[in-house]
Amino acid sequence: MLALYHAGLTTSAKKVRLCLREKGLSYESHYLRLDRFEHHAPDYVKLNPNGVLPTLVHDGTVVIESTVINEYLDEVFPDPPLKPQDPVLRARMRIFGKMVDEYALPALRIPNWTRSKTATLKAMSDADFAKLLQETPLIDHRLKLEALRGAGFTEAEFAEADGKMDYVAARFEAALADGPYLAGPAYSLADIAILPYIPGFAARRPGLLERHPRLAEWSARLMARPAVKAVYAPSDEAPAR
Amino acid sequence: MLALYHAGLTTSAKKVRLCLREKGLSYESHYLRLDRFEHHAPDYVKLNPNGVLPTLVHDGTVVIESTVINEYLDEVFPDPPLKPQDPVLRARMRIFGKMVDEYALPALRIPNWTRSKTATLKAMSDADFAKLLQETPLIDHRLKLEALRGAGFTEAEFAEADGKMDYVAARFEAALADGPYLAGPAYSLADIAILPYIPGFAARRPGLLERHPRLAEWSARLMARPAVKAVYAPSDEAPAR
Repeated sequence: MLALYHAGLTTSAKKVRLCLREKGLSYESHYLRLDRFEHHAPDYVKLNPNGVLPTLVHDGTVVIESTVINEYLDEVFPDPPLKPQDPVLRARMRIFGKMVDEYALPALRIPNWTRSKTATLKAMSDADFAKLLQETPLIDHRLKLEALRGAGFTEAEFAEADGKMDYVAARFEAALADGPYLAGPAYSLADIAILPYIPGFAARRPGLLERHPRLAEWSARLMARPAVKAVYAPSDEAPAR
Repeated sequence: MLALYHAGLTTSAKKVRLCLREKGLSYESHYLRLDRFEHHAPDYVKLNPNGVLPTLVHDGTVVIESTVINEYLDEVFPDPPLKPQDPVLRARMRIFGKMVDEYALPALRIPNWTRSKTATLKAMSDADFAKLLQETPLIDHRLKLEALRGAGFTEAEFAEADGKMDYVAARFEAALADGPYLAGPAYSLADIAILPYIPGFAARRPGLLERHPRLAEWSARLMARPAVKAVYAPSDEAPAR
């Protein structure tokens, strides 16, 4: 019995939902509303002490962190495999997975949170905002919420985010010279991890796909997969935002 | 044939050198001097495009990122195992490994780089500093070098770093309630990953170990391991700094 707590069409939710779909696994879907900060509610933080989404529950066992969840799913439900058998290619898959978590995710968060959270945060009463901060476990998230309620992210923060997006795109463009997928010959968790970021990168960095033709071809090819189409489209479990 | 490019007694170097030592693996040691920015030299950046240490070369194949290197070593040289067999415990090991990479490392970098790099950066000529920036692949590292040559990190950056150290310590203290090691019954790559940070955390956050008695007991127990003593002590391959 699998249950997934997620926010539908976010990058991290698409990443885990796509892994589940590629493996043909059914699960109980728990959709949480980010705009209501349901991921900071005390009951949810008991499951996931970081107060972030998604969280997987498998037969009562909790697994957090989308990258770790996907490796766990691949180990427990190995068919079809989404990790290369060759340890060198598996290392390559993990290097790119880390680059997504440490570069792509924090970079895209700067424009995404600015667009999706600023109005909500500015409209909150002082008391509600104080409660929200108190219920936010991660200090870097608290600081970002405070920035967005105030003057917003700085120009330097946007410049750093843009530089990270360009760096990730260049590294992935280079990687795709070695094979049709990021970790080489086979589709893997690395492809699943970065794909949700491509539309956001392209929107924020006009011309990015034109400057990275292998990334553009790879992205178009993956977006045509039936599982990707099903997961990325709005649905009952992932309402349009 | 294994070769390791590393900077000796840094947190990331200790992490990989300890994994190698626990497995009894011999390797060719390449010590790079951080104070001379040898990790930004064009020849090294060909090996590791991020321009950071360490890098493993195994029979001509390059593996980067200390967390990925250690999982790779455990897969290729599984005896003695440093990953739990149980997928749930392995997920737990990876969750804590991520917390080290995404919280402990950037947090401790703030005081560590302030102490170790400020004088060098301020003493450089404008031309040498411009060359250094040009040779620094990662944008967040470039921004940190510029900050240290200028006014230093802000009070907000130190506060965020301190908050992250406290958060990591609290999470690990809680985890150690479940077993003698971070991923449960057996010593694993999670223990190896966080151990090098403990002295720096304790120096920056006085009383941290007194406030986290399980972490203090665990740390003292691990520091007594022969492999840890050998790796953490200055040696020919890891000169005192």
